[in-house]
Amino acid sequence: MEKTLIFGHKSPDTDTICSAIVMENLQKKLGKEAKAVRLGNLNKETEYVLNHIGVDAPEMINEIEDGQEVILVDHNEFSQSVKNIENAKIKMVVDHHRICDFQTSEPLYYRAEPVGCTCTILYKLYKENNVEIDKKIAGLMMSAIISDTLLLKSPTKTQEDEKAIEELEKISGLKAQEYGLDMLKAGTDLSDFTANELIALDCKVCSLKDKSAKVAQVNTADIADMMKRKEEIEESIKNDIEKDNLDLFVFAITDIINSNSQVIVLGKSSDIFERGFGKKLEDNTAFLPGVVSRKKQILPVLQENA
Amino acid sequence: MEKTLIFGHKSPDTDTICSAIVMENLQKKLGKEAKAVRLGNLNKETEYVLNHIGVDAPEMINEIEDGQEVILVDHNEFSQSVKNIENAKIKMVVDHHRICDFQTSEPLYYRAEPVGCTCTILYKLYKENNVEIDKKIAGLMMSAIISDTLLLKSPTKTQEDEKAIEELEKISGLKAQEYGLDMLKAGTDLSDFTANELIALDCKVCSLKDKSAKVAQVNTADIADMMKRKEEIEESIKNDIEKDNLDLFVFAITDIINSNSQVIVLGKSSDIFERGFGKKLEDNTAFLPGVVSRKKQILPVLQENA
Repeated sequence: MEKTLIFGHKSPDTDTICSAIVMENLQKKLGKEAKAVRLGNLNKETEYVLNHIGVDAPEMINEIEDGQEVILVDHNEFSQSVKNIENAKIKMVVDHHRICDFQTSEPLYYRAEPVGCTCTILYKLYKENNVEIDKKIAGLMMSAIISDTLLLKSPTKTQEDEKAIEELEKISGLKAQEYGLDMLKAGTDLSDFTANELIALDCKVCSLKDKSAKVAQVNTADIADMMKRKEEIEESIKNDIEKDNLDLFVFAITDIINSNSQVIVLGKSSDIFERGFGKKLEDNTAFLPGVVSRKKQILPVLQENA
Repeated sequence: MEKTLIFGHKSPDTDTICSAIVMENLQKKLGKEAKAVRLGNLNKETEYVLNHIGVDAPEMINEIEDGQEVILVDHNEFSQSVKNIENAKIKMVVDHHRICDFQTSEPLYYRAEPVGCTCTILYKLYKENNVEIDKKIAGLMMSAIISDTLLLKSPTKTQEDEKAIEELEKISGLKAQEYGLDMLKAGTDLSDFTANELIALDCKVCSLKDKSAKVAQVNTADIADMMKRKEEIEESIKNDIEKDNLDLFVFAITDIINSNSQVIVLGKSSDIFERGFGKKLEDNTAFLPGVVSRKKQILPVLQENA
């Protein structure tokens, strides 16, 4: 049996990857054996972060053995986790999402807070345990918070995220504004990706009552540019709906400069979206001014209207 | 709409009642409006605690309105919670049990640790938030830890529970050993209770795969004395099985002086118990040496063998 494995969700984003690496560091500093891994390919933003800070990507895994000890970061829903998670021994969860599709047979350490980023909670854990934060670890945590809160512009941002960034800026020696914009822009270069890859890049599976849905999101600095690929993206979504027998697929193209989203919505339960947002889809698409957060502004609306 | 309501599980025990009162105190000291309530009658041990320390019992409620803001302490499973919990807005959970039959539609503050008692976690929250602990609040927390860990003799006890008791002893001015034994003994006077009341006094509903079970527990200083009432207890259990359509009912009579349990087991899935403990039931009963913890020594065994 491997030592305790630490990982975030499938379709990893910057918070998921950084949280796993940071948690490995924290566990080691507390004298515990643990190893960060990942469940999918890095996106360009995360690649930029790891290159810039000079940290290797965690090893990729696809499934785990029965009884494997694990620490989950940045997720808890089994549908977003590793294959065979049902048979793992979950020792710990650190997360900032709702709790759903999750259970254990024994008591565990579970720490969730309604803050903008898992790394904000990890930052507090370093403080609470009186563990010093190294320069690179500070850079990783700051990157994750910038990523999840879109440089503190997302409504998911809290005072605790702001406070963490302030302190992490000092330790990491990185300037949040300047470094953050470069990092976010690196993530918007999606020209290399096929449409199939685009819709899988940051995609969350979720259950809406008895309906099965996916909500994918990409960041861009130019919505119009991305909408040029609407036809091939729709084709990929339709194939995915058929393959996974989905009722709804929402693909959000989020403008990180102006804080709006254009969505492409397909599936036989598109009425959930239309009811939720009070908008008729035209040619399978709609513009959502001020919407940038899947967790805070899209998922709850779908859940309430399912 | 009422202000935020704080409550523990149904069939309240000392940890559930004390945690609710303590959490109300902590919330108020942090400048937040909240009110402790309870979901059932006090047991004799808890009555002894509240009388000795001089604190009123929280008001009893039976159900909550849609959208009510709540804080759960000492439980998370909806089956153990208040009626209509599915439609509450769960702001926070502080607990030390496994997570199961629980979900939210939005991010929340969730703090679980695998320690012996919810009040041990609450004690840490006072420290983390730099909030001073009053004498009475210290007494309540200490009582809860003594109750849940049977004066630190249960295998659920951790170093953190021990450390908390040490410090709370100083603040409360109570002597843990002396006060603790009196308190535990007060809880073992069950002569007033009908058999129906006995099996409901500290009873947890749980799902074992597709089976529905209840595991009830009473503390005693004299197993033989309690077993004199075996026949009427079995009658009550049989009625309860029929009423709630249960597959299994385990009633544990736990000797808090010698740390053993005698169990009465009924229901068509009694084989789960027999398989789990490698014991044939004789006349519906078995002796389990060294078993005192439902959470750590009974529930996991049933769950693994269902």
